[in-house]
This record gives sequence, C-alpha cells and structure tokens, in this order.
Amino acid sequence: MSMDTSMMTQVVGEIIGTMVLVLLGDGVVAGVSLRKTKAEGAGWIAITLGWGAAVTIGAYAAGYMSFAHLNPAVTIGMAIAGKIGWDMVVPYILGQMIGAIIGAILVFIHYYPHWKETKDQAAILGVFSTGPAIRSLGANLISEIIGTFVLVFALLTFGMSKFGDGLNPMAVGILILVIGLSLGGTTGYAINPARDLGPRIAHAFLPIPGKGDSDWGYSWVPVVGPIIGGIIAALLFMALPI
Amino acid sequence: MSMDTSMMTQVVGEIIGTMVLVLLGDGVVAGVSLRKTKAEGAGWIAITLGWGAAVTIGAYAAGYMSFAHLNPAVTIGMAIAGKIGWDMVVPYILGQMIGAIIGAILVFIHYYPHWKETKDQAAILGVFSTGPAIRSLGANLISEIIGTFVLVFALLTFGMSKFGDGLNPMAVGILILVIGLSLGGTTGYAINPARDLGPRIAHAFLPIPGKGDSDWGYSWVPVVGPIIGGIIAALLFMALPI
Amino acid sequence: MSMDTSMMTQVVGEIIGTMVLVLLGDGVVAGVSLRKTKAEGAGWIAITLGWGAAVTIGAYAAGYMSFAHLNPAVTIGMAIAGKIGWDMVVPYILGQMIGAIIGAILVFIHYYPHWKETKDQAAILGVFSTGPAIRSLGANLISEIIGTFVLVFALLTFGMSKFGDGLNPMAVGILILVIGLSLGGTTGYAINPARDLGPRIAHAFLPIPGKGDSDWGYSWVPVVGPIIGGIIAALLFMALPI
Amino acid sequence: MSMDTSMMTQVVGEIIGTMVLVLLGDGVVAGVSLRKTKAEGAGWIAITLGWGAAVTIGAYAAGYMSFAHLNPAVTIGMAIAGKIGWDMVVPYILGQMIGAIIGAILVFIHYYPHWKETKDQAAILGVFSTGPAIRSLGANLISEIIGTFVLVFALLTFGMSKFGDGLNPMAVGILILVIGLSLGGTTGYAINPARDLGPRIAHAFLPIPGKGDSDWGYSWVPVVGPIIGGIIAALLFMALPI
Repeated sequence: MSMDTSMMTQVVGEIIGTMVLVLLGDGVVAGVSLRKTKAEGAGWIAITLGWGAAVTIGAYAAGYMSFAHLNPAVTIGMAIAGKIGWDMVVPYILGQMIGAIIGAILVFIHYYPHWKETKDQAAILGVFSTGPAIRSLGANLISEIIGTFVLVFALLTFGMSKFGDGLNPMAVGILILVIGLSLGGTTGYAINPARDLGPRIAHAFLPIPGKGDSDWGYSWVPVVGPIIGGIIAALLFMALPI
Repeated sequence: MSMDTSMMTQVVGEIIGTMVLVLLGDGVVAGVSLRKTKAEGAGWIAITLGWGAAVTIGAYAAGYMSFAHLNPAVTIGMAIAGKIGWDMVVPYILGQMIGAIIGAILVFIHYYPHWKETKDQAAILGVFSTGPAIRSLGANLISEIIGTFVLVFALLTFGMSKFGDGLNPMAVGILILVIGLSLGGTTGYAINPARDLGPRIAHAFLPIPGKGDSDWGYSWVPVVGPIIGGIIAALLFMALPI
Repeated sequence: MSMDTSMMTQVVGEIIGTMVLVLLGDGVVAGVSLRKTKAEGAGWIAITLGWGAAVTIGAYAAGYMSFAHLNPAVTIGMAIAGKIGWDMVVPYILGQMIGAIIGAILVFIHYYPHWKETKDQAAILGVFSTGPAIRSLGANLISEIIGTFVLVFALLTFGMSKFGDGLNPMAVGILILVIGLSLGGTTGYAINPARDLGPRIAHAFLPIPGKGDSDWGYSWVPVVGPIIGGIIAALLFMALPI
Repeated sequence: MSMDTSMMTQVVGEIIGTMVLVLLGDGVVAGVSLRKTKAEGAGWIAITLGWGAAVTIGAYAAGYMSFAHLNPAVTIGMAIAGKIGWDMVVPYILGQMIGAIIGAILVFIHYYPHWKETKDQAAILGVFSTGPAIRSLGANLISEIIGTFVLVFALLTFGMSKFGDGLNPMAVGILILVIGLSLGGTTGYAINPARDLGPRIAHAFLPIPGKGDSDWGYSWVPVVGPIIGGIIAALLFMALPI
C-alpha cells in the first residue's frame, strides 16, 4: 500500500487478511481435532506450523491494501508507537472483527461433514477459540500478556531491520510459529483479540451439530491479555535507545 | 522468462514444471503410504511439507521458461484477472496435463519394488489422485472450491507485494503447505485439475500390481471444484479497491 | 545498528535479544517437557524448530541495537576474527548473562501453573539448562566444542556471502535448527555459555515447587566447551585462503 | 567467490563445505538412529529436515571460496552444462571426497559414547552410508538416477532465476528436503557419490565398537546412479529452449 491509501481500502484489506488468517488458522485446528479428517491427530507441530503460515498468507492477502495488522493488539501497539494514526484504530479493529467472523464461517462450511462425527464439545469450541490448559485466569492472563508482548515487540523490531518490507510476511510466520511452540502450550496463544472473539461469536450463532457452550467466562482473557501485552511492548520499544 | 518468450518455450516450461511437481508431490505420498519404504508412516506433516516444497521446486524448474502456473485453475484465474492472454489458456493446460502424466509415470518407476508389497488399493490410488475423507460430493466440491480460492487469491496478492518475483517460489511453497495443513484434511487438496486428472489417467493405464479401479465417479470433483474456486478468486480480486 | 552506536545501546540490545532468545528457547522445552501443557510430548522436532526460530527472533530483537551475538562464544570468536573490538567483549557478555537470567525468569512466570504438576526434577532443570544424554564429561565437552565450532564458523561465513545482512536472521535460524537436529542429541546443544549458565542461576534461586539441584558439577562443560569451539572456529576461519 | 579465485582456494572450499555437509547430514542420522541420544526415534521428518539444512549450511561454508558443489554428480553436470571448466572436475571431486571423510570422522567423535550402546550393525552403517529399503540393484540404481536428475536439473534452473545468488543456499535446502521426503524412501537418497563413498571408507577404517561390514557390494550404486542422473539432467537442460 502507499501512504495515501484510502481508509476504506485499508479496512477492506484488514477484512480480507483476517478472514484468510482465521480460515487457515482455525482450519488447521479443525483438521487436527475433528474426527475422520486426513489430518486427524497430526499434532502440535501441525497446528503451530499451520498458524505460522496462516499469518504469513494473511499478511500477503492484506498487505497491498492495508498495514496488515490483522490483530487489534497490534493496531493499538502500533498507534502507541506512532506507526499509525489513532483515527485508524477503530476502523482497523472493526475490519479485523468482521474478517475473523467470516473466516470462522468458512471453516464451518469447509469441514461441514466432520462436525457431526465429532462428539467432543471442547474440541469443537477449540477449533474456533482458545482455552487454557490449566484454568487459572490470573496465570492465563499473564501468559497472553507475555505472548503478545513478544509478538508486538518483535514486529516493531522488524520495522527497524535492514530487511525491508519484502521478507516481512515470512519473518512474521516464523514469529507466530515460535510463539506457538514456545509460549502457546499454556493458553493456546490467542495473542489476538479478533482471532479469538470473532470465531467465538461465530461458534455461538452457527448451527454446529452437538456443540456445547462458548465459554464466555473465559472470553475476556484472550481479549484483555493481548491488549495489555501489546501496550507494554510499544512502551518498552519507545523507551529503548535509538 | 521475458515477455516475448515463445509459446512453445512456455508450454515446455509448463510440461517440465508440472512433471517435477507431480513427481515430487505424488512421490511424497508414495513414500509415506507404500509399504517398506524408509518414509513409511511419516504422516501428514511429511505429506504437506513435501507437497509445499514440490511446488516450490516445480516453480523454479518452469519459471525461466513460463509463468509457472502448473495448474489449470491458476491459468484460468490469471486469464480472468488479465495477467495472461486467453490464447495461452489451452496450450498451458495441455502442457500441464502432459507434464502431470509424465510425472506420475516417473513415480511409478521410482517406487517400482514397493507396489507389489502394498495390498491397500486405496493407498495405491491415493499416491496418484485425491479422494475424500468423507464421501459427500457436494461438500467435497465446496472444499475444493474454498482451497483453490485461497490458492489463486493469494497468488494474485503475491503479484501485488513489494516482494518482487525473486521470493515467489518460496512464498508459493508456504501457501501450498498451509492449504494442505489447514484445508487439506477433507478431500486431500487437489486444488489443481491437472495434478489430479493426469495421474488418475496414469493410474488407469500403468501396469501396477494389484491396483484397483481409478474412482472415475469422483474424478470430476477435483477438476470442477478448483476451476470454480479459481474463477471466484479472480473475480473477487478484480472487485477489490486498488 | 550503525558503526557508531553507543556501547550502552549495544549492551541493551544484547540484554533484550538474549532475553527473547531464552524466553522462547527455554519456553519450547517447557512446553514439551512440563505436564499438562498443550505442547506436552511434541518431541525433538518441536524443540529444535523452536530453538531455531527463537534465535531468529532474538536476532531481530537485538539487531537494530547491537551485533546480535547473544552468545559469549560468538562474541569471543568475533573478537579473535577482528569483527568486533576487544573492549566490547566484557560488556557484551555481561548483557548476555543479564538477558538470559531475565528470560529464564519470564519462562518461570509464563508456565507458572505447570511446575507443580511436574514431578520429574530432571525435566524441570532441563527447561533451564542442558544436561548430557550419556554423562561422560570429556566426550560431552568435545560435543559442545564441535557444535559451537560449526555455529561460529558458519556465522563467519555468512558474513562473507553475497547475502547481505537482511537474510541473516533466517540463516541463523536454519543453522541453529540443524545443529540441534544433527549435533544436539548428545548434550542438548548448549553451544552458548550464557544460554546455559544464566538459566541455571535462575533455576537455583527461583522458588520452583519440587525442583532438585542445579547440577553444578556439569555446569562448566557448556561454558568451557562453547568457548573453545568458538576460538577454534575463528582461528580456522582466519587461516583459510581469501 | 570471484571468477579468478585460485584453484587451491576452491578446493579448500569444497573440502570445508563437504565436511560440514557430512558432519551435519550424517550427524542427524546418528542422532535419530543411535541409542540413548536425545534425538532417538525423531523419525523421517528429522532426517530430511536435517539433511536439507545440512546442505544449506555446507553451501554457505564453501560458497565464498568455491562454487559449493559439494557433490561429484553436480560437478560433472555443471561441467557438461558449461558452468565450470573441465580442468576443475578432478580437483573438485578430490576435495569433496577428502571433506566427506573428515566429516564422517567428526561424526564418529561427536557421538563417541553412543556407538557401544548401539547393537544394530545396519543402523551403525546407516549413519555413514545409504542402503536400499528393498535390495534390488537395478531398481535402486534407477531411484538414485531419478533423485539426482531432480537435484542437478533444479540447481541448473536456480541459476536461471531472477533470484540471484543470495537465496540459493536456502533454495538448495528446500530442494534437498523435498528430494528426501519424496524420493528418499527407496534408497535413502545418496544423490551424491562423495557423501556416500567417503563415509563408507571412514566406516571401514574407524574403530567403531561392534560395527559390521561396510556393504561394498552395494557401494557402486550410490556412485554410478548419481553420476548418470547428473549427466541426464545437464543434457536435458541444454536441449531445452532459451
């Protein structure tokens, strides 16, 4: 995108990119978790590789239209760090939420015959939204803060590298892969309020056979934690020398 | 390639590239599925990594002679989006089909001692062509549409990035990897009519010990679905701002 | 960074980068080894991929402030090879040790609910520091020498390539991945005194439920071995033609 | 390297690069196959990823001194294709053989305590040299021809791409990965006479506890097959348009 890309174009970019991100990201969890897929049981490596590559492709899909944040925690962090105007924050987040919901609906359609084969309600919800390995909301919140801190801080340092923009989608994929491998085991690494809340809303209204509740009691953790983590990252980045 | 590369050179490029793509792509399924290979049972990660890298190497092999589509759904999508002339569509698709059949023959030769060790007819056919995890032709068709939509839309956005051509083969590999991981569990992600139909023809005529039928009843799904998906992607791309 | 970046900025870079490296590197071991995480049992591939990507992201995080050594064996080798002044060696190593300890504390916090679920004291120590597969200090020392020799020699050759700086963080990630896969099975590939000693100190003072001792009898091996390996690499590099 | 790099420097480059390639490549097989390592049982993905990255790092280590062939089949193919003078062929191959033997000795030293724990003589030989999954020398020869054809043909197309030299080490790693995944299951993909014969010589003379014979009856297959495959690739490449 160029600097004078219209706000509407940028919002469309966030919608498309977040749609692709959630379709591919939630898609890999569906493949691994739902019954009778060819990917069933492919494990944690498949999930973390899939999410990493999902964000890479989402970044390409959005990147010629918007800054490809695809994540409200990134948008807020970038606004604090002065990389984007505050007037863009609400439109970007709206676009991200819309895209995430559309992406989750596409996952529902794509795996249509597999839902009724799957009796595990937690597995079905887990396709859409994250849940903690050990439920302890304070500790879970801290995990989401730390994971998103690494995400937003690293993204800010990418912008400082001699790299240029060209390789950024691949670097972002490696970043999401390693956050998943290294920090994802505690809460499933939402690290993105739109990625978690959008599909949770879709889970609530979609006619999924045999689904359980949408665990709204946990839903604030993967929204609040990432926002706090993104803010801390931006503040630390600005406090550093250079 | 340069803009004035002859049609004959471009078709040779599509033949060579699709041959490499199918040799390596069907090859990884052979390694994982046939009996008594060193790769036996290496699983879904091996298959999806192998297919991703197969397309990367196929793109290199073709790329100095043709646009390296290696896929009729991509060729049709690119024609709709105005990236290639309509006069190239039939020659490209013919080249892709020829290359896919040659690639499948090479897989047959390469794994020669392993066919008679393998008693599972579905596994043998699965080396050559895709089949659904749950047979439901309407749902299977939609899966192929969605998977190919992501493929062609992302390829079109690669062309818009600040990336340049140089990294495209690697970006394409990541794209195929994630489509496999995230959307491949339902139908085995043909997402390419030549990749599925060419090897299915080879399966029909090759003297494979103990092979079963070639499942022609399913064969139209991985042809029609990808073409529809590619068309939708090109139309959406053209409707977007910028 | 530019050539006249202040020493303080460079030290901050080493602190931040090594903190990220240890948070993500020790983090992946925690995810795989501790009980009741979502990554539990993801295996050696997860650990080696995670450590490779951890160093890539650590290099980005540091790289606009310092040379991103993140490793005393690298700093000493680079000083011998004339790539950095000897006056920088002690400040760099101090920064690396501080960052490694902070990173280990963050791992403790991030996985807080999982420590008391884990009864295996060796697994808990293994999150922080390396230990040998077969305890034989002479052989273990040689393993660390060989692994670090490959690390430092390859880093010096990266600097000679036509690559430029831009791709270096990714090349370093591949290097760490392959050292892990190929040479890590003997001692757990510390190949970095700060990465091993810093977290071992943190293990000694952190209030981890049910932890055992910090195995100080082995602790010199992953400090001395890497330093010897780095020195040999630098001397060989300087002896080579060109 | 520049065009007027001395022959001695180029040979040193081939020695160093092939040493690194075999140390890391045979190293990953040792890690996965020998008893009581931390990588034990990590499987085919670990082996193929490790070999891919081993060649990437070997290419860096050699690449500022030589053309980084690291493989007699590549050197012969490049001579046929006119990319290197015929006077370089014998010196390059000698350097590759010396480097491969040194690399194998380093693997022996690195895994020293693990040899006597390993009772499987085929596993010990398999660390050093390849062997077929199903012994059928004609079919095995054809497998090595096909695998090396893909290797050398793809390397020649890399040189034609808009890529430039910079990314070549990474593209080569992806190529080796996919040849392993897709074509390696039949014979273990030597695809390189030096990589197979050098370590087989080392296996014959090294004092490995409980080793068996070095299977000289098979040893010509991974020498002759790759050379034939490389020649076919070069001839096809030269016959193609452009």
